[in-house]
Amino acid sequence: MRMYDIIVKKRDGYPLAKAEIDFFVHGYANGEIPDYQASALLMAIYFQGMDDEESAHLTMAMARSGDMLDLSEIDGVKVDKHSSGGVGDKTTLCLIPLVASCGVPIPKMSGRGLGHTGGTIDKLEAIEGFNVEMTKEQFIRQVNDIGLAIIGQSENLAPADKKLYSLRDVTATVNSIPLIASSIMSKKIASGADKIVLDVKVGSGAFMKDVNSARKLAKTMVEIGKNVGKETVALLTNMDEPLGFAIGNALEVKEAILALKGEGPKDLTELMLELGAHMVVLGEKADSLEEAKAMLKTNIENGKALQYFKRLVEAQGGNAEVIDTLSFKEATYQIDVFAKEAGYVAEIAADELGRASMLLGAGRRTKDDVIDLSVGLYLHKKVGDRVTKGEVLCTIHANDENIRHIKKIIENSIQISVEKKGKPLIIDVIK
Amino acid sequence: MRMYDIIVKKRDGYPLAKAEIDFFVHGYANGEIPDYQASALLMAIYFQGMDDEESAHLTMAMARSGDMLDLSEIDGVKVDKHSSGGVGDKTTLCLIPLVASCGVPIPKMSGRGLGHTGGTIDKLEAIEGFNVEMTKEQFIRQVNDIGLAIIGQSENLAPADKKLYSLRDVTATVNSIPLIASSIMSKKIASGADKIVLDVKVGSGAFMKDVNSARKLAKTMVEIGKNVGKETVALLTNMDEPLGFAIGNALEVKEAILALKGEGPKDLTELMLELGAHMVVLGEKADSLEEAKAMLKTNIENGKALQYFKRLVEAQGGNAEVIDTLSFKEATYQIDVFAKEAGYVAEIAADELGRASMLLGAGRRTKDDVIDLSVGLYLHKKVGDRVTKGEVLCTIHANDENIRHIKKIIENSIQISVEKKGKPLIIDVIK
Repeated sequence: MRMYDIIVKKRDGYPLAKAEIDFFVHGYANGEIPDYQASALLMAIYFQGMDDEESAHLTMAMARSGDMLDLSEIDGVKVDKHSSGGVGDKTTLCLIPLVASCGVPIPKMSGRGLGHTGGTIDKLEAIEGFNVEMTKEQFIRQVNDIGLAIIGQSENLAPADKKLYSLRDVTATVNSIPLIASSIMSKKIASGADKIVLDVKVGSGAFMKDVNSARKLAKTMVEIGKNVGKETVALLTNMDEPLGFAIGNALEVKEAILALKGEGPKDLTELMLELGAHMVVLGEKADSLEEAKAMLKTNIENGKALQYFKRLVEAQGGNAEVIDTLSFKEATYQIDVFAKEAGYVAEIAADELGRASMLLGAGRRTKDDVIDLSVGLYLHKKVGDRVTKGEVLCTIHANDENIRHIKKIIENSIQISVEKKGKPLIIDVIK
Repeated sequence: MRMYDIIVKKRDGYPLAKAEIDFFVHGYANGEIPDYQASALLMAIYFQGMDDEESAHLTMAMARSGDMLDLSEIDGVKVDKHSSGGVGDKTTLCLIPLVASCGVPIPKMSGRGLGHTGGTIDKLEAIEGFNVEMTKEQFIRQVNDIGLAIIGQSENLAPADKKLYSLRDVTATVNSIPLIASSIMSKKIASGADKIVLDVKVGSGAFMKDVNSARKLAKTMVEIGKNVGKETVALLTNMDEPLGFAIGNALEVKEAILALKGEGPKDLTELMLELGAHMVVLGEKADSLEEAKAMLKTNIENGKALQYFKRLVEAQGGNAEVIDTLSFKEATYQIDVFAKEAGYVAEIAADELGRASMLLGAGRRTKDDVIDLSVGLYLHKKVGDRVTKGEVLCTIHANDENIRHIKKIIENSIQISVEKKGKPLIIDVIK
């Protein structure tokens, strides 16, 4: 088999066979296939696409390129959740104790990542002492003991995906649906998931800007799941405005705790219940979404969900007091942004608020950046809310006094109009 | 400027600006742009193409990446000729003395190359003592003294093209018309041509298998010529069957000499006169193609063309006696292939005969192969000729007795049918 012939085949629009995809992924990961041939193939895939079967083969080849976490020692169906990323998306934080409280075991592996804020793992570090590193044995034991555990992604998780992603990043081949889909799915599968719930975000603050592309991505991932025997459900959800009120690491943890107490923002609560219901059904702890949603609501009301979060924090060495006190390290300056006119909030540009959050220091621009966990933004209004002139729209939490440019970004990002508008949060469910 | 943005622009179908093409070619040639980004761009060009202006910019950027031969010390219009390559194509050998004999100065730079036989430079080495290396000063002096000279291509001729071609070769991006066109034109322009005549071959023995692609390539090169101020004429010519009777190095030199004496095969003679007429007109030594053709015919009849070939051989240290004696070193074995039935020759598969020639040792498979100048094939019949059963169709000239597989290839490549068929040699002229 020759890499050259594989490039020709894809260039000319033919589907690649499993053996060819394996040859490519294996050869590229171990350095036998040079970058320049890999990038030519990636660009050919960009133009010619890949069918569901090819995407499934690519997913499995990348998953198998490194450690494949074996979670068979954990009883029950392991349901993993993935979000394609959005501004203010702290859903995982509240979702995992909530779903675990319904009896679904949650061995969660999560990332740090680049962007407007840190990843789930970074956010949890806003809780003093919280430790995200443990051995595989400790991880499995903790899930069996208390129902849930969360650790950072293994260095050797789908290394072929990591290497290919770096190459895509510099050769303008990131934006290909089969490549995005197989990259995401390969990591979920290597993390040992039996079933997967996906939150595919759509809108200005998401990677996918339009519903059609997002739907295509969601369908591709659901089909990959089917093809590799891991049942997958995808929700398409709106990311035109940030999720909830809080953007930033500690700010988001606080909001997630409030949601677990039943005091969270409407949209975050809705998303948590929808995603959670699918996880509980896939985890075989309820027969219908209605039943699952009722279980989730009960466990919020009776404090069981919050209890599971406390257990998680304690088991991983964190100071669980903050769950009651909600006293996180605050940023030095709180600066308000005011409404310049009265009306209804028509738009809160999620991408721009994400950028503002990154500029404040809440996110990483490059891998080696250090995150400031205390900074961020707190919205007081959401799209559709009525505002009067002079009312506070947003509070900036900063450790630098000189944030005029950030204030400007926020002022320009929140639009007020005379009519009340709004979009549904859940756009579609694909399974 | 960033290479990444250039890839995105081409990937998304926008034309690249001159500055962007210069940045890419210059950066790639000097190693600042890595192979993997170059190959991603090449694949994007494969899919999105390049317009005539982009192709012209690419041509000039590659031409300027190395030595640009300055031939201004040679009086007159320097007209270069290029063939896209075909089986049995010895046209350059007879064309250059013939056109020089009409007063057009011919400073010819030629290649060795890979394929079924050697390049023009290899073929000339079948003449004992013929030397293809000289300084630029000697080269120019010889053209001014005797009207023509031929040397091997400078090592530093369009090095960016050489580097890009190597990359295209391993990334399945050779077959792109703007890339092929600018590669050819960059070398012609760096070789100092004022005007260019192109012989674009079409058919089984050519790089371009169909007339539409060949026409597109020809048009692209003619437009590049226009864009860079080098008038260019392209002939589309048939390469379904080999040109002339001879395939092989010494065999082809012999046939070229016969053509200069007016005793060559019909097709070779026709092609030589057509290409020659365009060169004489572009070289401003005749006002019309008819006038030019008459001059060429006269110089064949009166021996002047042959005289110019003798001068060339003598000036470059070769034994000019062979021009009269036609006694070249012969291969040890001459094995005939016979017609198994009577009828008309319907097809002589040029590609297969080229392959047979390479297997005999007449061509290079890799750069370091040594060519056997004496071996090759000699056809006794051409498409459209009548044959009787048992008549000789082809003689194999070999230095190895064990050539059963080659005989088989030839038997399978020559088709005989009951009706007489044939295609015109000159398909179109594009200017």
